[in-house]
Amino acid sequence: MSADGSDVRLDLARRGRTSIPEVIFGERKTPEAIERIARALYADSGFALATRVAAEVGPELARALPDARYFERARVLQCGSLPRTGRRVAIACAGTSDVPVAEEAARTLEAFGHETIERFDVGVAGIHRTFAVLDDLNAAGAIIVVAGMEGALPSVVAGLVRPPVIAVPTSVGYGAAFGGIAALLTMLNSCAPGIAVVNIDAGFSAACVAHKIVSLGEGPPGTGTRGD
Amino acid sequence: MSADGSDVRLDLARRGRTSIPEVIFGERKTPEAIERIARALYADSGFALATRVAAEVGPELARALPDARYFERARVLQCGSLPRTGRRVAIACAGTSDVPVAEEAARTLEAFGHETIERFDVGVAGIHRTFAVLDDLNAAGAIIVVAGMEGALPSVVAGLVRPPVIAVPTSVGYGAAFGGIAALLTMLNSCAPGIAVVNIDAGFSAACVAHKIVSLGEGPPGTGTRGD
Amino acid sequence: MSADGSDVRLDLARRGRTSIPEVIFGERKTPEAIERIARALYADSGFALATRVAAEVGPELARALPDARYFERARVLQCGSLPRTGRRVAIACAGTSDVPVAEEAARTLEAFGHETIERFDVGVAGIHRTFAVLDDLNAAGAIIVVAGMEGALPSVVAGLVRPPVIAVPTSVGYGAAFGGIAALLTMLNSCAPGIAVVNIDAGFSAACVAHKIVSLGEGPPGTGTRGD
Amino acid sequence: MSADGSDVRLDLARRGRTSIPEVIFGERKTPEAIERIARALYADSGFALATRVAAEVGPELARALPDARYFERARVLQCGSLPRTGRRVAIACAGTSDVPVAEEAARTLEAFGHETIERFDVGVAGIHRTFAVLDDLNAAGAIIVVAGMEGALPSVVAGLVRPPVIAVPTSVGYGAAFGGIAALLTMLNSCAPGIAVVNIDAGFSAACVAHKIVSLGEGPPGTGTRGD
Amino acid sequence: MSADGSDVRLDLARRGRTSIPEVIFGERKTPEAIERIARALYADSGFALATRVAAEVGPELARALPDARYFERARVLQCGSLPRTGRRVAIACAGTSDVPVAEEAARTLEAFGHETIERFDVGVAGIHRTFAVLDDLNAAGAIIVVAGMEGALPSVVAGLVRPPVIAVPTSVGYGAAFGGIAALLTMLNSCAPGIAVVNIDAGFSAACVAHKIVSLGEGPPGTGTRGD
Amino acid sequence: MSADGSDVRLDLARRGRTSIPEVIFGERKTPEAIERIARALYADSGFALATRVAAEVGPELARALPDARYFERARVLQCGSLPRTGRRVAIACAGTSDVPVAEEAARTLEAFGHETIERFDVGVAGIHRTFAVLDDLNAAGAIIVVAGMEGALPSVVAGLVRPPVIAVPTSVGYGAAFGGIAALLTMLNSCAPGIAVVNIDAGFSAACVAHKIVSLGEGPPGTGTRGD
Amino acid sequence: MSADGSDVRLDLARRGRTSIPEVIFGERKTPEAIERIARALYADSGFALATRVAAEVGPELARALPDARYFERARVLQCGSLPRTGRRVAIACAGTSDVPVAEEAARTLEAFGHETIERFDVGVAGIHRTFAVLDDLNAAGAIIVVAGMEGALPSVVAGLVRPPVIAVPTSVGYGAAFGGIAALLTMLNSCAPGIAVVNIDAGFSAACVAHKIVSLGEGPPGTGTRGD
Amino acid sequence: MSADGSDVRLDLARRGRTSIPEVIFGERKTPEAIERIARALYADSGFALATRVAAEVGPELARALPDARYFERARVLQCGSLPRTGRRVAIACAGTSDVPVAEEAARTLEAFGHETIERFDVGVAGIHRTFAVLDDLNAAGAIIVVAGMEGALPSVVAGLVRPPVIAVPTSVGYGAAFGGIAALLTMLNSCAPGIAVVNIDAGFSAACVAHKIVSLGEGPPGTGTRGD
Repeated sequence: MSADGSDVRLDLARRGRTSIPEVIFGERKTPEAIERIARALYADSGFALATRVAAEVGPELARALPDARYFERARVLQCGSLPRTGRRVAIACAGTSDVPVAEEAARTLEAFGHETIERFDVGVAGIHRTFAVLDDLNAAGAIIVVAGMEGALPSVVAGLVRPPVIAVPTSVGYGAAFGGIAALLTMLNSCAPGIAVVNIDAGFSAACVAHKIVSLGEGPPGTGTRGD
Repeated sequence: MSADGSDVRLDLARRGRTSIPEVIFGERKTPEAIERIARALYADSGFALATRVAAEVGPELARALPDARYFERARVLQCGSLPRTGRRVAIACAGTSDVPVAEEAARTLEAFGHETIERFDVGVAGIHRTFAVLDDLNAAGAIIVVAGMEGALPSVVAGLVRPPVIAVPTSVGYGAAFGGIAALLTMLNSCAPGIAVVNIDAGFSAACVAHKIVSLGEGPPGTGTRGD
Repeated sequence: MSADGSDVRLDLARRGRTSIPEVIFGERKTPEAIERIARALYADSGFALATRVAAEVGPELARALPDARYFERARVLQCGSLPRTGRRVAIACAGTSDVPVAEEAARTLEAFGHETIERFDVGVAGIHRTFAVLDDLNAAGAIIVVAGMEGALPSVVAGLVRPPVIAVPTSVGYGAAFGGIAALLTMLNSCAPGIAVVNIDAGFSAACVAHKIVSLGEGPPGTGTRGD
Repeated sequence: MSADGSDVRLDLARRGRTSIPEVIFGERKTPEAIERIARALYADSGFALATRVAAEVGPELARALPDARYFERARVLQCGSLPRTGRRVAIACAGTSDVPVAEEAARTLEAFGHETIERFDVGVAGIHRTFAVLDDLNAAGAIIVVAGMEGALPSVVAGLVRPPVIAVPTSVGYGAAFGGIAALLTMLNSCAPGIAVVNIDAGFSAACVAHKIVSLGEGPPGTGTRGD
Repeated sequence: MSADGSDVRLDLARRGRTSIPEVIFGERKTPEAIERIARALYADSGFALATRVAAEVGPELARALPDARYFERARVLQCGSLPRTGRRVAIACAGTSDVPVAEEAARTLEAFGHETIERFDVGVAGIHRTFAVLDDLNAAGAIIVVAGMEGALPSVVAGLVRPPVIAVPTSVGYGAAFGGIAALLTMLNSCAPGIAVVNIDAGFSAACVAHKIVSLGEGPPGTGTRGD
Repeated sequence: MSADGSDVRLDLARRGRTSIPEVIFGERKTPEAIERIARALYADSGFALATRVAAEVGPELARALPDARYFERARVLQCGSLPRTGRRVAIACAGTSDVPVAEEAARTLEAFGHETIERFDVGVAGIHRTFAVLDDLNAAGAIIVVAGMEGALPSVVAGLVRPPVIAVPTSVGYGAAFGGIAALLTMLNSCAPGIAVVNIDAGFSAACVAHKIVSLGEGPPGTGTRGD
Repeated sequence: MSADGSDVRLDLARRGRTSIPEVIFGERKTPEAIERIARALYADSGFALATRVAAEVGPELARALPDARYFERARVLQCGSLPRTGRRVAIACAGTSDVPVAEEAARTLEAFGHETIERFDVGVAGIHRTFAVLDDLNAAGAIIVVAGMEGALPSVVAGLVRPPVIAVPTSVGYGAAFGGIAALLTMLNSCAPGIAVVNIDAGFSAACVAHKIVSLGEGPPGTGTRGD
Repeated sequence: MSADGSDVRLDLARRGRTSIPEVIFGERKTPEAIERIARALYADSGFALATRVAAEVGPELARALPDARYFERARVLQCGSLPRTGRRVAIACAGTSDVPVAEEAARTLEAFGHETIERFDVGVAGIHRTFAVLDDLNAAGAIIVVAGMEGALPSVVAGLVRPPVIAVPTSVGYGAAFGGIAALLTMLNSCAPGIAVVNIDAGFSAACVAHKIVSLGEGPPGTGTRGD
């Protein structure tokens, strides 16, 4: 399938191979293509997930598809769900404009079976807000930190917590923010060690990294067991 | 300490707070400054590590400092060591020119107490070499993949393994490689989910992320326990 | 002709001189200008081709022009055709969003008289899909590989096939994909030798290079004969 | 004067006009040119200052010139001095590698007659160090914050103090630090209001801005009096 | 609050801590969110300010909110006001297209209680216009200079006045102006000392810096007193 | 082998698989590593080639290795040779500073068994020089065009010849040439169709593409036969 | 005047001082502002010119203003005219999409009293078209060459003519044309001496440079007389 | 000739065709190559010029070549001279570090037979210096303005003079000057009309443009006569 779903080659073995199921990237796809692929995935495994599904088409798709739900702020469409894991991932974001990206990460992780701890609007301009949520972040197996503009929040957080920090720059900002480049560079150059970075606005990518981290030991024998 | 070590404010509580001890960044520092800080850290905890220590000064520093060893290809200087953890991290690199960065990661992880699985020169131009090491990579708790030029190796690996992949772009290449920008962009835009990226040539940063991942559950009660 | 076709100086000798006929670049041109130039070219040689013709105007132009056909996904408008050559060009693309660029290349090559082998959605995230089409690609005289995001597919393909590989980066992606720059840099820096690159989204340019390659020996005596 | 000082047109009225005296930029100038211009400025006003004077020539110039002193880390050469003002400027820097830039600012301000409060190595990776110096910074009329790598320190400081913050990005860092671009963008995009930015490594420029700020009310009647 | 205002954590102590109250950044926020936050801020302190409020929603918000006024060219919405300070800030801009940015600065400063001196369309192409306003600029406690295109005005002004100059590049221009990058670089590299720079189109940021400068001595005892 | 050749995994089957043998990239490698790998390749197939071999070590390596020759301007080291093919590739370059890149391509092609037609210093500033060599270029199976500065030569050539044009931008130039970026962009955006581009200064890459083109029909049955 | 024309300070002496009258830049201005300024300029000197006037408002403005005419392709609005000079400027452009920029230059020059020689669609892909117009170009006092995409035309022209060449890059192109950056860099790095460059799409700027060149000797005694 | 002069194709008809003789670009050429080409040019026309000739080899070349002179600051080597023209070109530069570029322009113009008016160190930080030289600049047929850092001088000059202004950005500056990019962008975006720009540090290019301008009317009948 292509725009109309006719050239797609589904990779149904991906979850077994990499722990992450094939997920539909909704941008540039027609609603028909999204629906067709979602049905195929759901038929195979009882689960389908689509990101970047526009608010114009999401609710209708949710009505048309089996066992489906649409999250508007996250732009995520979910059919069915994966088993609960009992693992926790924390998600913090700097400003209110970063929330959609944070929610894309959160909804993806919950669809993958994990519990999320969401703490929003905790940017460094009022750093007491950051400190107020540190214990919550430290209680997770991985921390996703989402920030636009200058993107300083991951540096501050990583200097204060034990779990790995996955930093997500957002395109929030103007002028010399350059659509997220400023935040991206900040995160790549952080003076606080232990930060890994994903693409601009890539809430889904951050969720996949966090999912892999907290799933260690969940795979087939001999794989992904932290090495012990 | 500054270039001469006189303005440094040591952060001795960092390891307790974040799981990563303060480590000396040797670039732009005089041998005297490196020695002074290393002695102070070693006196506090029986352990000191310095990266980016030039081959011109490393061997002499290793002779002068207590319980010290210098790794020339990695440019790492180590005094004492941290307790063995029994955790495993795999490190793959695409070409032979990427080895120094891969070794910086490997020596750092070993100094932090972990076991490393090193598989070098497995780039995608001869992709059978990549396939030949997949089982080794899958046996680790985290996989560091180091690549310069076009940096395609992490994409291929991440499509085939369960552990999280930490991608390290290197400055290897010429012309439109732009000192590592090409590889960095490749890794940030990977079509294979579950890749986290660190700065160009940042073997140490990758090691810190991997250390945090495989150390989950090792911290004080209630922190960094994957959430279960 | 200009936007209205009034300042154009047709280069009717181009096909004899370079093997590639003058082709209309439809972007920024009015339908009237496209129609007028197409009629002039068709009158001269019984063949006219226009690329980047928007879906809003393509079908109507196809109805108005002689012996014409419009391909919507490729945005290609064709009047008449060139003689069959019996030569084959393979076209692979990484993801479904890259299909329009791949189709621009395919429709152009077919208009130029060649046979195409199209294999879509074979990106490296599920590399078995790439391997499944290798024999098909190897059976062609040139291989066009189209990829957006990190653009790693040409590197993998070029390490496994004998024909020359023409890599086309696409603007598919977001954030640090920078409208195709990431894929472009990847392709220029490939560790696999034997890759030539064209502009971002330039399916037509790739087709022209492939056309020249498979047409070797077809020109006037003493030119373009591979030198033997 | 030019490289040899022969084409210089001294602007001796600059201090009266703008409050900042003409200062020699030592880079790309021969020692002879620096000495000649310094003598001319000193003869006119009993004061001369040169920045970016290399350690190879600074000490000898200091011996040759009247009433002169050379500061090696700051690369500043001073002849004579301006009257004490009793005003205070605080200067903080993130890491020890940023100290030379911070010292260029400090020595310039002291030469201009101000008192400086220097607090170095207080970067956000160990944010308790930042908090420990806040009262000192708040006691000044302006705060210069110097930081390389990701340059997050000014954002944190500006969210916690009342005086204006002048942020100086430095070229400290590697890879995606791009010689200071990452820090520069961070500072320009700060979410904490009240930050003004100068060029990369521009300790002298920051000092000039701070000098103008704390000198308000010192100029001729009717100018620069804060407007009250 | 987020787009709908539901995730906001208000920082009501910010004005006491930094002299600048929390201000609403209206871009990407719904009118409902702006109204809700403005009401909360006004309830706390009798003052609320929002910038980047679109002309489509500004007038209606001004009618709905207590003691409110909307400035269309500045895109500023104000509820209540802060006490008059008697301090003066001058604002100059190069061309008429830069006026909206200059007005954002002016309206912010007036809302903060200061008096403004506005001198517009005084760019260097007709430099007599610049000279004509110099005395007015010199009578202020800080000068904001706004310019797009090549952004040369701050260099010329700073060579002729005593107060600190805050330079604001604008996105006015085309082609190689690159949305304000050209003007930004000009201002960062100015040969005239004493210029501090803020983000592209950041009239509000410039106002905050100017506010901090002219407010020196206004804070709690021992802070921000110019050090005397 | 790595810098010392100890981590290399030779890909001896590459020539059979892709038509291009494994070639040593000499940059960043010690002479010992180059010698060791060259001996291993020569022992396997009677042929070894190394590019980017510095003039300081090339002649001595040529003396030490069997059946070896070093080309200083091309920086190419060759041991043994591949069978003559009777195919011809033309190589043109714009200016005399581009010659080393052109020679890297020429020596590589001759080592691969092809005949080369070299026409240098034929840049468009004196376009009669370009016209004078057109017949020579047209007599080849592929044309490599090497140009620095603005890189306009491939556009002019491609508008006048039948064989495919492989464009190589060089880092020759200064200022806004940006180390070859200007020429690279020129070639990617050429208005003359039928140009394929390789990396900056990548004479070897261009040779590999040309080799693949003129070798069509030389591979195992069913592969790379132009499709007829 | 600003968007509504209320903050403008007209520079009526500009033509006497620099030979170029004040001209209205229509972008970002309301029709009301354009009309008000045009009336003021016309009242002063019997002449007014506005560039970048959109087709939506141009015809109506031409009806409303005295002695006015609107050129749609050039987006130029003219009221009155300057005296004929008898001087000639040639304007060439590479492709039909570049015509609007070329026409902006042509209409401006004619409004300034000069004669223009326009030769369009003469790009280097069919270089016989370029050669066909060389005599026409050589007959002018200055040559403006407009080109998008790779922008090679000025290099070819400048190698063949005597008058100065003013090169105008346009934003025509896609992908790696980067909105005109590719053409701009090409022109700045031309191997053919005697080319001067203006901003992207800046037909008006090119016209001003050409006007100054052909007007030499027309100014007040002792100025601009070529020095003889 | 190439590095050793063996691949050069001299373009001896260039002066007749374009008014500018072939000139040797000395960078990347050996002294032997420079000498060989200079002898060939001098033998043909009694004149040879080489730019970018390093101080290490210039004096010796001047001794070896006939009728030769070497200008160290300009790095220009001249053999013989062209006839005096009586035309005048003015050259201004902003700071003393820009002098070498200004001198390259000046020595080239004098070698071409023109008179130069040199006014250095007249940058806008002390704008009275700019005003002091305006009459001198206005007395020339063309004005070359050389500036690094923010490059504002051409904007100020062009607003005040009648002759065309040729702006030369230099690589003088640091940090965000980006090796001349800041000054280049400033000049391309100038708000003062009538400025043409050449490459960074391109004193020779500026001289060629100025030479063409002041030579109008000097060519063969019917060419380059300003059109009157």
